[in-house]
Amino acid sequence: MLSNLQFDEQTLSQRLMNHRREFHRYPEAAWREFFTTSRIASHLEHFGYSLHFSDEIIKRSSIMGRNEVLVAEAQERAISWGADITYLAHMDGITGIGAELDTGKPGPVIALRFDIDAVEVMESEEDAHRPRFLGFASLATGIAHACGHDAHASIGLGVAEVLAKNKHLLKGKIKLLFQPAEEGCRAGKAIAESGWLDDVDYFFAAHIGMNVPSGTLVCDPQHFLCSSKFDLHFMGKPAHAGIEPNAGQNALAAACTAVNQMLAIPRHRDGMTRINVGQMHAGDGRNVIPASAVLLGETRGENRALNSYMFQQVENIAQAAAMMHGVNVKLCAQGEAIGLENDPELVELLECVGPESGFTEVVREKDFGASEDAGYLFDRVQSRGGKAIYCLVGSDLTAGHHNGDFDIDESRMLPAVKLLLNAVNALQQSPLIEEPSNKSQ
Amino acid sequence: MLSNLQFDEQTLSQRLMNHRREFHRYPEAAWREFFTTSRIASHLEHFGYSLHFSDEIIKRSSIMGRNEVLVAEAQERAISWGADITYLAHMDGITGIGAELDTGKPGPVIALRFDIDAVEVMESEEDAHRPRFLGFASLATGIAHACGHDAHASIGLGVAEVLAKNKHLLKGKIKLLFQPAEEGCRAGKAIAESGWLDDVDYFFAAHIGMNVPSGTLVCDPQHFLCSSKFDLHFMGKPAHAGIEPNAGQNALAAACTAVNQMLAIPRHRDGMTRINVGQMHAGDGRNVIPASAVLLGETRGENRALNSYMFQQVENIAQAAAMMHGVNVKLCAQGEAIGLENDPELVELLECVGPESGFTEVVREKDFGASEDAGYLFDRVQSRGGKAIYCLVGSDLTAGHHNGDFDIDESRMLPAVKLLLNAVNALQQSPLIEEPSNKSQ
Amino acid sequence: MLSNLQFDEQTLSQRLMNHRREFHRYPEAAWREFFTTSRIASHLEHFGYSLHFSDEIIKRSSIMGRNEVLVAEAQERAISWGADITYLAHMDGITGIGAELDTGKPGPVIALRFDIDAVEVMESEEDAHRPRFLGFASLATGIAHACGHDAHASIGLGVAEVLAKNKHLLKGKIKLLFQPAEEGCRAGKAIAESGWLDDVDYFFAAHIGMNVPSGTLVCDPQHFLCSSKFDLHFMGKPAHAGIEPNAGQNALAAACTAVNQMLAIPRHRDGMTRINVGQMHAGDGRNVIPASAVLLGETRGENRALNSYMFQQVENIAQAAAMMHGVNVKLCAQGEAIGLENDPELVELLECVGPESGFTEVVREKDFGASEDAGYLFDRVQSRGGKAIYCLVGSDLTAGHHNGDFDIDESRMLPAVKLLLNAVNALQQSPLIEEPSNKSQ
Amino acid sequence: MLSNLQFDEQTLSQRLMNHRREFHRYPEAAWREFFTTSRIASHLEHFGYSLHFSDEIIKRSSIMGRNEVLVAEAQERAISWGADITYLAHMDGITGIGAELDTGKPGPVIALRFDIDAVEVMESEEDAHRPRFLGFASLATGIAHACGHDAHASIGLGVAEVLAKNKHLLKGKIKLLFQPAEEGCRAGKAIAESGWLDDVDYFFAAHIGMNVPSGTLVCDPQHFLCSSKFDLHFMGKPAHAGIEPNAGQNALAAACTAVNQMLAIPRHRDGMTRINVGQMHAGDGRNVIPASAVLLGETRGENRALNSYMFQQVENIAQAAAMMHGVNVKLCAQGEAIGLENDPELVELLECVGPESGFTEVVREKDFGASEDAGYLFDRVQSRGGKAIYCLVGSDLTAGHHNGDFDIDESRMLPAVKLLLNAVNALQQSPLIEEPSNKSQ
Repeated sequence: MLSNLQFDEQTLSQRLMNHRREFHRYPEAAWREFFTTSRIASHLEHFGYSLHFSDEIIKRSSIMGRNEVLVAEAQERAISWGADITYLAHMDGITGIGAELDTGKPGPVIALRFDIDAVEVMESEEDAHRPRFLGFASLATGIAHACGHDAHASIGLGVAEVLAKNKHLLKGKIKLLFQPAEEGCRAGKAIAESGWLDDVDYFFAAHIGMNVPSGTLVCDPQHFLCSSKFDLHFMGKPAHAGIEPNAGQNALAAACTAVNQMLAIPRHRDGMTRINVGQMHAGDGRNVIPASAVLLGETRGENRALNSYMFQQVENIAQAAAMMHGVNVKLCAQGEAIGLENDPELVELLECVGPESGFTEVVREKDFGASEDAGYLFDRVQSRGGKAIYCLVGSDLTAGHHNGDFDIDESRMLPAVKLLLNAVNALQQSPLIEEPSNKSQ
Repeated sequence: MLSNLQFDEQTLSQRLMNHRREFHRYPEAAWREFFTTSRIASHLEHFGYSLHFSDEIIKRSSIMGRNEVLVAEAQERAISWGADITYLAHMDGITGIGAELDTGKPGPVIALRFDIDAVEVMESEEDAHRPRFLGFASLATGIAHACGHDAHASIGLGVAEVLAKNKHLLKGKIKLLFQPAEEGCRAGKAIAESGWLDDVDYFFAAHIGMNVPSGTLVCDPQHFLCSSKFDLHFMGKPAHAGIEPNAGQNALAAACTAVNQMLAIPRHRDGMTRINVGQMHAGDGRNVIPASAVLLGETRGENRALNSYMFQQVENIAQAAAMMHGVNVKLCAQGEAIGLENDPELVELLECVGPESGFTEVVREKDFGASEDAGYLFDRVQSRGGKAIYCLVGSDLTAGHHNGDFDIDESRMLPAVKLLLNAVNALQQSPLIEEPSNKSQ
Repeated sequence: MLSNLQFDEQTLSQRLMNHRREFHRYPEAAWREFFTTSRIASHLEHFGYSLHFSDEIIKRSSIMGRNEVLVAEAQERAISWGADITYLAHMDGITGIGAELDTGKPGPVIALRFDIDAVEVMESEEDAHRPRFLGFASLATGIAHACGHDAHASIGLGVAEVLAKNKHLLKGKIKLLFQPAEEGCRAGKAIAESGWLDDVDYFFAAHIGMNVPSGTLVCDPQHFLCSSKFDLHFMGKPAHAGIEPNAGQNALAAACTAVNQMLAIPRHRDGMTRINVGQMHAGDGRNVIPASAVLLGETRGENRALNSYMFQQVENIAQAAAMMHGVNVKLCAQGEAIGLENDPELVELLECVGPESGFTEVVREKDFGASEDAGYLFDRVQSRGGKAIYCLVGSDLTAGHHNGDFDIDESRMLPAVKLLLNAVNALQQSPLIEEPSNKSQ
Repeated sequence: MLSNLQFDEQTLSQRLMNHRREFHRYPEAAWREFFTTSRIASHLEHFGYSLHFSDEIIKRSSIMGRNEVLVAEAQERAISWGADITYLAHMDGITGIGAELDTGKPGPVIALRFDIDAVEVMESEEDAHRPRFLGFASLATGIAHACGHDAHASIGLGVAEVLAKNKHLLKGKIKLLFQPAEEGCRAGKAIAESGWLDDVDYFFAAHIGMNVPSGTLVCDPQHFLCSSKFDLHFMGKPAHAGIEPNAGQNALAAACTAVNQMLAIPRHRDGMTRINVGQMHAGDGRNVIPASAVLLGETRGENRALNSYMFQQVENIAQAAAMMHGVNVKLCAQGEAIGLENDPELVELLECVGPESGFTEVVREKDFGASEDAGYLFDRVQSRGGKAIYCLVGSDLTAGHHNGDFDIDESRMLPAVKLLLNAVNALQQSPLIEEPSNKSQ
């Protein structure tokens, strides 16, 4: 089937590597991908896609885990790195980009999603670390592409280029989502609620690495955890701890009470749950009743109901702890993952096109065991009758994800591109959904 | 002055001893003084007093620390001991008695208060313990007059008899209050709120013993502590702790949270505060989420504001702890003491009549350091323009108050009676309040 | 195969019913089965078994959850019910009995275990409750055979009788264990450690009911939970809470700290864990720093390692909570279940003989989801090369286990007896273990 | 008496102002007074004093609350401000200076102590703030002489100058202690333990302001609180909170447990106690079991025993909380105040010389109600037979101590100098201690 879409593998492979090394050198963490977005936009515009920014693809009021100060700093740096001012204006502070290729012919709407953010990790300074050895190591201290999203963005550009060049062979519409802030599951909900994916018939997402070796494709990973990330801000009243200890409202004490109780949320009959408070920062003196405290926490559950059970307990405990100490509390959602399940038809499709895309081993199931921000996107597409799939593209790694020594096998980007192209091509030839839904008209 | 009131000291002294030994033999704890009340009523009626029972002297809805089951048992026992059924009917379940002697002549309203309840203490079974040796030891296992209220009731009957016999020499009204449930500070508030003391111009109360030796009178004891006694009942929902731990509402956990936080109520700038949880009883299985828990606690404060501060924190913590664990909570007041301060005119009066009443030493101040249920009665009288006093009548003791070996020096009852008679007489001769208040008209 | 063992089904069935109703009428809770043991001993001696009591079958120092006061009371009551004094002497305070039938011929040692204790549950007083309607309801208030162990003991006597009568047809040895204190998993460890089962080649145990309907046999129930039951005794020092709050050592506070932390033991990666504190009883005054507190708790785990993880945390938390409040703590084991796994050969054996024993449906697996004291017995037998099995004998129930309305379908005792006889017979004919182990020589 | 010591008031007054404004402009916080020490040393050397630095006056191992990073930064800054390198070398990293004037004649050893550190407070930037208006506002952002120690150091230099110029009129020795790190009570113990004050017969210290108005001298302030400042470092083990929650050692949870229990340290019979945890900082991720936590706290007590009671509880709770959560804990003392009591002979001396020193009102007692680092110095001197006094020199203030708007009445420095000179002079004329102790020989 692949014969339909024309491209030169050698050239493409080289281009993927170039893209990836540039993204790797200029890593930007969640909600701060200004340079990255600007670079992607430039390529996509050149390929002929129509571009969608900011409120078109992201509902501002549903954004989670975005720090204005860090965002402003990142924008400055992006400019210093040479980001295109025009695109920055389009972004209006909100990173990420949606690209559309309308063939003008009736046919399905096929969306492909690529996440583009780096993580806050210090990249290895060992000479043996390949990005350093070859000169494309991170230029931003404390930020690195240690999760492989530099490869994802590159794969997206590869797919974008081939599809655009073969536009005359395609039907319907192609939508490419270069998603910001996947880390911490902070953007998925806001993107879903923007409605930009509402007309999608088929939705594709993939992750490189994830303990899958080079050459292997996992078509149907299992157990995407549900999770809620949150900050709790307790606000009390200071008082001199020696002179009038009764006059304060102790935010630190309220936070401690909340921690002790959150860690004691009862286990649940129906399966695995988790709770963690990863940080507390409270007070700013020694002899003053501390008037402020912030907790950074997260809940998890084997399914959405279990995570909801945990999160509702957190909300209740926070309220009660605040009441107990006469302080106020504000809960700020910082991220949310709701799990996802692949549509079996697309699983079969990938099993079918995997071998011809350069994978030597095609596996059906493997435990994912982590959270993915794609859950909200799946939910939006599937609840409107579309079909969605998330697969794992094997790559030998030099270290685990989020580790400073992390590096991928760059040669595994090409098979990923071919897999997605083959899947798109197959859907063009013989749609899974017999009667195209009226939404894609 | 005493010459005005006629009585034979020898006879009176013998009678006081007889009364005291009878009360000692039939001790009844708080709110259960049915036999005691019945015996007192019989004497008072014989002396010619008009009697007031139940709702006339006690506001039922303000009663604290009364256990219906124990009350019912006590009533049965009082009957078996020979309590007068007619008086029991008047009591209608509420012990204590108010007696009035109206001279028919204009003059002040003078009230004297005597508390009559025993304590839940096992009386010594040593032969050397005088009540046992002389055959008037407690007939009720686990209850004893180990605080001296048997003497108080006897002193009250002595005063009653002399005043009644000298009625023709008196002016105004005499009111005698034989108070139930002083222990635990459970009745004072309900008596005050009945309004029976609202017309009182002068109010007298006394305590025997209290580490004051025989022969000494303390006219103005200091530092009556404020205190609130309370029970907290947490009510949750049981669930099998193994099968569905999430389904319960853990009352024991809520109670533990409440305890931890109550013990951590901040100290107060303005002085001494106290908190204690003396008991917890929770749950009734091993593998069931415990659905009930009860705490017995108390707060104290150097003054009323400090005790209120503590008690309000308790209330808030209890509510918040219940909310935190999804259970209900009920706070039941079990007693309350609000402190008291003597009027200086009456202190001077006692200093004046003390020596002629049989006290070899008359002292002004001494630390009281405990709680007294008379506080509410003082508050009621003083806030309406009346004057009040609480004094300590010395008595060598064989052991501390509330100890099973406790016994008093019976010979010290007579000076107490003479002191009160002399005080009444002095007020009759030259009232402290020049213009009798219109309430005593 | 059954034809080998001769007995009259009609007569046996009637006898089973008589036994069961007598046991039901005289229920005795864990470690208090004096009347029950005496009655069983009498029958077994009559059948010709040699009897083993007390230290012969139970290692005293490993006993858990035995209350001397309750045991003494129970012994008194057993005598009043007519227990045989001679057997009581043999028991020497320790209930339960081991019976042996030695054929004198070489052959396997086959053991069958029947648990005999009742539970502390108030039996229904409804007329519709069959034991009440038919006149064999519990004579001991608050104790009832609400778990079916009356049926187990009866089945044991039925098996005992038939085997004894057919002794000439048997080889090797038969050992019958009438186990006390199965409830709370309190006796298994002590029996195992006595060594009485050390020579056993085949070990059988069964439970009636367990949500399996009449007519069904479950040959290989799954998921026997591991569990530890414990009491924690905190011992501090009293002090007057108002006068010298600093002088006490607060056992109640230590207990509350321990509870809060035990409920917060972190979840475990490897699977299901549970913690519960079912009861707390602390203090005995209101204004005294509470000097004693007792907690009743339990841990559970999906396997032995998980339960150990939980229990070690409990031990550590208890020690630390005591240290924190300057009190002492003693942890008393009250029961322990360690899980069990059937040997597949015996599962197959039961699947084979089930249909011919009167079961209309023979099922392999079903979730057990609770704890069983047989785990220690399995461990002892299997670790010495023996094989063991635990099966479920279906019976329609009128209410769940441990419910006051619980009653069994008495007609299901006969199939249970036949199943066990058929299994014994089959093993006699063709032993699973080709070369009889030298221990059974 | 003053006539003995010759100086020109006008000139001295001007010089005091110049000194004070220079110190005010270059404020340095505790243990960082490099520029300040260098400037004082330069003056003292010029006056003819022998100088003592570093280990001569401070026992290094007893230093509390010193942060090496901040010290190093401060030293850099002092150099940039022009501090004398030679003196810095003498200091060897430890600020403060001891100066000695030996008359060569027999006589008492008289010590005077002046504290020199600034506080970490942002000075007011209002134009109306006099130091800003007159151009001597703090040059160090976030640090200011908002407690008056700039005046103390200046008074010390004034006293030093006059005494040196009148050396021929003096007997015995004069010791001047320019103390670092009084704030937080961090240096007193280390100075005392250096032994530099061991031969002192008379010790003087004073504080300006303290809510005493200009013109008033308080000779015997009361109630110097005892206090311990401490940091608690909990060190655990990180683990992925989702993947293996059981594998971590939760330092944050341990810290929360410690906080809850420290706030619940029982009140003490003997008087006022305080506890505060002013800050907590724990963890550095969201989904990681937090492996570190630090608490900043303090205890207080009305006397040394009460503060010890509190602090020992803190130590015990910290250990137990660490044990409970399987983490380590380190307690770092950050400061300690032990209270002080004036010798009555010196109180009378000040009452005597106060009026002639320029004070219009001389008061005996006033509540101090705070902590003072002089306590350890008093203890050292008094326990060796010396006498010590701490007085308050009134000054109208523009805002409270440690407030950014704080400013003193500069004209009040002269009376302070005169008071100390007069006191020294009086002791020279007629020593309080008849026979000079052999230590001052």
